[in-house]
Amino acid sequence: MLHDLFPPGIQHALDLAGIFVFATAGALLAVRKNFDVFGIAVLAEVTALGGGLFRDLVIGAVPPAAFGELSFFVTPLIAAAIVFFLHPEVQRINRAINVFDAAGLALFCVTGTTKAYEYGLGLTASAALGLATAVGGGVLRDVLVNEVPSLLRDREMYAVPATVGAAMVALSIAFDALNALTTAAAIVTTFVLRLLAMQFHWRAPLAWNRRSAVSEEP
Amino acid sequence: MLHDLFPPGIQHALDLAGIFVFATAGALLAVRKNFDVFGIAVLAEVTALGGGLFRDLVIGAVPPAAFGELSFFVTPLIAAAIVFFLHPEVQRINRAINVFDAAGLALFCVTGTTKAYEYGLGLTASAALGLATAVGGGVLRDVLVNEVPSLLRDREMYAVPATVGAAMVALSIAFDALNALTTAAAIVTTFVLRLLAMQFHWRAPLAWNRRSAVSEEP
Amino acid sequence: MLHDLFPPGIQHALDLAGIFVFATAGALLAVRKNFDVFGIAVLAEVTALGGGLFRDLVIGAVPPAAFGELSFFVTPLIAAAIVFFLHPEVQRINRAINVFDAAGLALFCVTGTTKAYEYGLGLTASAALGLATAVGGGVLRDVLVNEVPSLLRDREMYAVPATVGAAMVALSIAFDALNALTTAAAIVTTFVLRLLAMQFHWRAPLAWNRRSAVSEEP
Repeated sequence: MLHDLFPPGIQHALDLAGIFVFATAGALLAVRKNFDVFGIAVLAEVTALGGGLFRDLVIGAVPPAAFGELSFFVTPLIAAAIVFFLHPEVQRINRAINVFDAAGLALFCVTGTTKAYEYGLGLTASAALGLATAVGGGVLRDVLVNEVPSLLRDREMYAVPATVGAAMVALSIAFDALNALTTAAAIVTTFVLRLLAMQFHWRAPLAWNRRSAVSEEP
Repeated sequence: MLHDLFPPGIQHALDLAGIFVFATAGALLAVRKNFDVFGIAVLAEVTALGGGLFRDLVIGAVPPAAFGELSFFVTPLIAAAIVFFLHPEVQRINRAINVFDAAGLALFCVTGTTKAYEYGLGLTASAALGLATAVGGGVLRDVLVNEVPSLLRDREMYAVPATVGAAMVALSIAFDALNALTTAAAIVTTFVLRLLAMQFHWRAPLAWNRRSAVSEEP
Repeated sequence: MLHDLFPPGIQHALDLAGIFVFATAGALLAVRKNFDVFGIAVLAEVTALGGGLFRDLVIGAVPPAAFGELSFFVTPLIAAAIVFFLHPEVQRINRAINVFDAAGLALFCVTGTTKAYEYGLGLTASAALGLATAVGGGVLRDVLVNEVPSLLRDREMYAVPATVGAAMVALSIAFDALNALTTAAAIVTTFVLRLLAMQFHWRAPLAWNRRSAVSEEP
């Protein structure tokens, strides 16, 4: 089976690590927004599990892993509790968090694509859902804090690495070459692309002939 | 069966009463926001049925009660029609509406937890979905009117009573003691906690060492 | 079968045309908001497929057509690419786009109602889901760009024609008279009503005795 590419224990530990990092980022945003303790917990849960929840609803994986797997649900609460007490310290290691976030992004776009394909979706749809798994939680988080999702507007190169990773998995499946090696290659490529984008401030293009200085229409 | 704790007729009447009150609150907000007649109806529907719809999608109860049970769908339209014509009068009894809203909150967190457990979810996930049933409609309503959900930021003690009620139901199930008495106890506890929170302005804590005076980051 | 009212090829071509027009409108909004190329593609997809995706999740059509039908997923990407390069030209034919948008609205409220009924929902719920199919993508689009959905507030007569069309289909089913003729009548009625509403600036009413000049509460 596709999801047995890595030993189950390692796979599960990687998933939990990705969930923990995403949840930490969500909880930190909640603290900056002066949310109360309940809002911190909700934003941690939504950021960490929202993308996978959307994927599972679309592919009909009921109940979704976010609710069917207790450790997935509890991990964001632990992250929220740590941020609740130690947010100044956590904030200080923001650079490290960004690196772990890139790792979570890489992992989720790959496992999301694989899971969607296992549930019978086509290659393009599977890659799209892998991408949604990786970035969906962040979009929901931004909607809840009443901001335009940074993914859509910031021109930060966040979605492109995930798209590349999801496409690599889909291509591996198409050529019947999905194995631990190609999976690891997709994860590493996404991770490195994202780190390079952060380091060199790569930006996604605006619409053709559109200057970024143009202000929004009234 | 768990959902036969009360005679079906009473259960259904309670559900409709809760839906009616939530819908009224949603419709009043739509009037304050100057929404048109269609917006009033949509906000009534979303506020009243959004939480249960989310729960039903997650547990795979298809079609969700919001669309499968005609009386659930029609009740918010009646509430919207009343508010459309009589909103000044309805606004005036705002205090009474808050009390009924507390009753709806208490009822929905308990029935939501029970229904999720019946569909095979674990105790923690069931309690989380019971909470989502009770507060989810309000979150969707606030997203639609383009505000940060008051649940996450206002520090008003709204989610905590519902969390307590959902946890009481989950514990009753865990100890094989779910019956009409323990269910009623969970409903009453949630209701009274919410009334006390309103009366004495109990507030949920912000993050540790975070003054509420700190403004949002730019 | 109900969905065989028209030859499958024509039905599919109509669906793709509606998706293309909705996607174009979404992509143009993304350009006006200075979204990057990824944001343009996402807003095109969400606007075109969001309503049908919601309907399919509610009726349990898994995987939803948005992900199960490759041409549905690819069409918004083509619209996004065209808008990315040619947005000034596309913007200039805005009036024509509004006419096509009215056609998409008419088509989607009718096919959405029919599909929901085929999946076993009641007549009222089917009509509601037909309406949601037609207007849901626009609501999600507005939430993502952080605006109150224009559907709820602008008093523009957008939802009313779709409601009429969905109701006509539901009544046709109720009287066992759903055929190519009554379906076409519902589509044409919705389309013409929407064009008349645009031409004569018909507006939906605010709450009774509520002046539109009343400002929002603080």
